[in-house]
Amino acid sequence: MPQGQPSAVPDDGLTTRQRRNRALVVVHTGIGKGKSTAAFGLALRAWNQGWPIGVFQFVKSAKWRVGEERALRVLGDSGEGGSVVWHKMGEGWSWVQRDAQTDNEAKAREGWEQVKRDLAAETYRLYVLDEFAYPMHWGWVDTDEVVEVLRDRPGNQHVVITGRNAPEKLVGAADLVTDMSKVKHPMDAGQKGQRGIEW
Amino acid sequence: MPQGQPSAVPDDGLTTRQRRNRALVVVHTGIGKGKSTAAFGLALRAWNQGWPIGVFQFVKSAKWRVGEERALRVLGDSGEGGSVVWHKMGEGWSWVQRDAQTDNEAKAREGWEQVKRDLAAETYRLYVLDEFAYPMHWGWVDTDEVVEVLRDRPGNQHVVITGRNAPEKLVGAADLVTDMSKVKHPMDAGQKGQRGIEW
Repeated sequence: MPQGQPSAVPDDGLTTRQRRNRALVVVHTGIGKGKSTAAFGLALRAWNQGWPIGVFQFVKSAKWRVGEERALRVLGDSGEGGSVVWHKMGEGWSWVQRDAQTDNEAKAREGWEQVKRDLAAETYRLYVLDEFAYPMHWGWVDTDEVVEVLRDRPGNQHVVITGRNAPEKLVGAADLVTDMSKVKHPMDAGQKGQRGIEW
Repeated sequence: MPQGQPSAVPDDGLTTRQRRNRALVVVHTGIGKGKSTAAFGLALRAWNQGWPIGVFQFVKSAKWRVGEERALRVLGDSGEGGSVVWHKMGEGWSWVQRDAQTDNEAKAREGWEQVKRDLAAETYRLYVLDEFAYPMHWGWVDTDEVVEVLRDRPGNQHVVITGRNAPEKLVGAADLVTDMSKVKHPMDAGQKGQRGIEW
């Protein structure tokens, strides 16, 4: 995609440099493929910049994203780019010490609480909140609070949120929103998911 | 995204296993962000499967995708997953020995000719033809021929094609098509592209 020119110059009192470096809230939503894969593609750019990356997988199954996780771990451990810390709800968040018999709603909240702590501490430069649109959509995590925390986050921290049904308030508060629309999918033609493509 | 069930069982004489392992033609098109980033996210899964990956960048500037290229090279060289070969039109295709003073149209054709040779030789398991929708859209490469070559390709080779304005014939021939739609973009608010996000 070419580096376009902005279509408007905002009256926000910021210099171009300040505006250029303003950290973004990015949302990938819609029913099509590519929401999470594009988020992890973005993580490659962040890694190349040497940024610390925090991934929070808000999904039930710990098996999801095995390929992306392994790749990002190898990259993070290579010493050539940024660091990568990968948190998985599906096998119990690593910072939760007790035997996690809590339900998914409680787990999603625990994930969000950690994201809040990390944002306050400026732990990462890029946050991938994978499938985080779901807990908001289901009302497990309060969207108003998410919007407020993201708005008031300190420093220069980019946040990418993926998942279908991103709440309108989140879309309204985000800087960059892409809707992945399904034009055609192999399952429509009776084909099942396959390794290397779906996972 | 959950592993859904197919909505129809096709009358194609194939077993589920055969259908599951049928190689796909994937198209990421539309005016939104994430077309290429999602393709490179897919490459992470392919790498995790140990597949040989061939990237063909059909873009003018060799500077594009520097982050993705570096990350994929580090992964390919790690010895832990699949191999990665990265071809760039922007700095002259590596297999073209003469001083490349040819125009972009000729270069795009040379790229496609190499893709054809590699498909025939089954060189890779995943092909990322980044921005390849453009030379088809502009008529530099014949879409009918692309569709035919993809349809008749031997073995088990997945092909991902990105770019705006994917020709209808290509969309018709593809197995999985996602349209990335722009809901909101920082440039609309006067913000310029920034490193770590746009490149």
